[in-house]
Amino acid sequence: MQETFAKRMGKVHRSFIREILKVTADPSIISFAGGLPNPECFPSKAIAEAAQRALTNAPVSALQYAPTEGDPELRAWIAERYDQRMGLKLDPDDILITTGSQQCVDMVAKVFLDQGDTVVLERPAYLGAIQSFSVFEPQFRTIPLLEDGPDLDALEALLDEAPAKLFYAVPNFQNPSGLSYSLEKRRAVAELCLRRGLLFVEDDPYGELRFKGEHLPSVYTFAEGQSILMGSFSKIATPGFRLGWIVARGDVRDALIRVKQASDLHTPSLTQRIMVELLQHFDMDAHIAMIRERYGHQRNVMVEAIREHFPEGVTISEPEGGMFLWVTLPQGCSSMQLMDKAVACKVAFVPGKPFYVDPGEGENTLRLNFSNASEEMIREGVARLGKALQEFLQ
Amino acid sequence: MQETFAKRMGKVHRSFIREILKVTADPSIISFAGGLPNPECFPSKAIAEAAQRALTNAPVSALQYAPTEGDPELRAWIAERYDQRMGLKLDPDDILITTGSQQCVDMVAKVFLDQGDTVVLERPAYLGAIQSFSVFEPQFRTIPLLEDGPDLDALEALLDEAPAKLFYAVPNFQNPSGLSYSLEKRRAVAELCLRRGLLFVEDDPYGELRFKGEHLPSVYTFAEGQSILMGSFSKIATPGFRLGWIVARGDVRDALIRVKQASDLHTPSLTQRIMVELLQHFDMDAHIAMIRERYGHQRNVMVEAIREHFPEGVTISEPEGGMFLWVTLPQGCSSMQLMDKAVACKVAFVPGKPFYVDPGEGENTLRLNFSNASEEMIREGVARLGKALQEFLQ
Repeated sequence: MQETFAKRMGKVHRSFIREILKVTADPSIISFAGGLPNPECFPSKAIAEAAQRALTNAPVSALQYAPTEGDPELRAWIAERYDQRMGLKLDPDDILITTGSQQCVDMVAKVFLDQGDTVVLERPAYLGAIQSFSVFEPQFRTIPLLEDGPDLDALEALLDEAPAKLFYAVPNFQNPSGLSYSLEKRRAVAELCLRRGLLFVEDDPYGELRFKGEHLPSVYTFAEGQSILMGSFSKIATPGFRLGWIVARGDVRDALIRVKQASDLHTPSLTQRIMVELLQHFDMDAHIAMIRERYGHQRNVMVEAIREHFPEGVTISEPEGGMFLWVTLPQGCSSMQLMDKAVACKVAFVPGKPFYVDPGEGENTLRLNFSNASEEMIREGVARLGKALQEFLQ
Repeated sequence: MQETFAKRMGKVHRSFIREILKVTADPSIISFAGGLPNPECFPSKAIAEAAQRALTNAPVSALQYAPTEGDPELRAWIAERYDQRMGLKLDPDDILITTGSQQCVDMVAKVFLDQGDTVVLERPAYLGAIQSFSVFEPQFRTIPLLEDGPDLDALEALLDEAPAKLFYAVPNFQNPSGLSYSLEKRRAVAELCLRRGLLFVEDDPYGELRFKGEHLPSVYTFAEGQSILMGSFSKIATPGFRLGWIVARGDVRDALIRVKQASDLHTPSLTQRIMVELLQHFDMDAHIAMIRERYGHQRNVMVEAIREHFPEGVTISEPEGGMFLWVTLPQGCSSMQLMDKAVACKVAFVPGKPFYVDPGEGENTLRLNFSNASEEMIREGVARLGKALQEFLQ
């Protein structure tokens, strides 16, 4: 029946990462390929208690159809947290609950993208967003991601050439690179977007996971009216709830509600009510502090092991938060080819190429995840990868 | 920012029903407007126990990221049930779990619809599907829904004029009309779709809720290879889980997985695992039998009350299952205008017009929900509506 598919299907591929994850199901392989939070950080007991409260105190709220916008108490908690974290004052009505923050990208694409519209991405970019946008057949343009954020000269030059509909970015501990925007870059990108009328779509699933340096405000705080902000409970609580949110105002908010209704009516009431019960009875600050400390330690162990085992000429990003570290091999080396050798050495990673929309880019890069492995596995896995690299580079 | 919206947003409206539900929040109004299952039928206690088991026996499966396709045990249960109910043999791999069956329509639209493609709908049609399809800017064509199913001569004539991409239909106890396809019509529509290469998209959220007559097999059983089948736990367990599924094979299945990944990565693991635990420890057959008996009784009470209170010239459908009953006023009467009088009499319904894509159609129709009201409320509400009708028709 393939001949009757919509044209867009030629551009929508399975996630390369999800395919790799199947290969790495072999338990003898140490995998840095996934993007999973550490399950030892899930507050399982507190969630079980929260589920009991949600299902005994007010079961109908947890089990009946519910408003598309999301649970009012959940939205109020999110608004309050933005105020605490960065002094951002939001009306809870300007926050919509989504089925994971992946759905936010789908909703933004539905509201804004006509076929052929230009979407600006960071280079490299989050693979899941490339997938979601691709369904709506935009034209992708990319700008380099530097140590302190995007290359704004490149963005200006790109906009001088042709208008763009939106700029999608992950300013905190980006997936895949681990890089973050400096405070100056946050201000500068906001100023540019306001001046040029470019919509800034800010995806922030990792913002709370800073284990080094100072917490920085979202670009949204400098570009209100010209930006949309997305968040998620996946990395601070658990991804199994598929609970995310999107912050937008006025017409944009109303348009997002309409497409959300058309997408899945509303996010499950059950997960929302359990999350509300969790947030009311559980010390989230202490919990997030624990995750930060753990991931920071794992990141340090990985960086140390890399310094010990990787050959010269291989460079890495040194993330101040999040779950990923980015490796650059010497020019001309292909991380896709390295993958075979690595799997033979019983270790896995994600080649960087799928994070680039421009053909020929990123061949010599790869992503390592440090959140979902013990200290021992990190040391052993990096040693194996170092061995594979030594052999490969000879 | 509205000027930068995608063109499709001109065609995507808020659900009229969801807007009416806000008006009817007034507790003095008896509302037949909603499409809600009766919360007294939710197995709250069994769900609370299932949640405990899911979150204590194997919490990581309920809390971590999970495969896009859905939980294997949940898919196996669904496959087994189709076999029990209608002798349909399915491979669990051909069943994908979705975030409610509303999401199925979004996924089908993504896979099949280019802008301007023709989608055939029943007349009247399910409003939620009109909304979801509209995002992908098809051209809608409609065929009349008769007492025993769609007018197939009209469908042949329509296809002779121009090709269509798919035919979306709700063959069991349709929302809004309450009508069902006869066995002969099921066979005939399947034969037509196979012969003309028309994709039959079968939405079946109410199939288990038959309280009168004989259970009939899905059209899918007669049109495999040319059809897609959708189902839902919303009406047999609870809508708050937002758990639905879609049955498709081969290339179509693979394409649906790709767009599902791009839509929300996967449906919450938590709701899936709780549902698996519920299905393993709870007598679903007895539970569904209880719902059937209750809704059947409520439907009978409503039909009786209508016969007593509605003026001559007003006709109704007499559904054999589901949650809705369809009222036709004399030609020239507008149910939109009746609405004002009804609300003054403290009773509400949904005017039929939003269920039609053709302008000028359905003015004299309206939908009544009988699942979510007690016997007393049904008697009192129908009496009020009868009074409003008497005054209105004078």
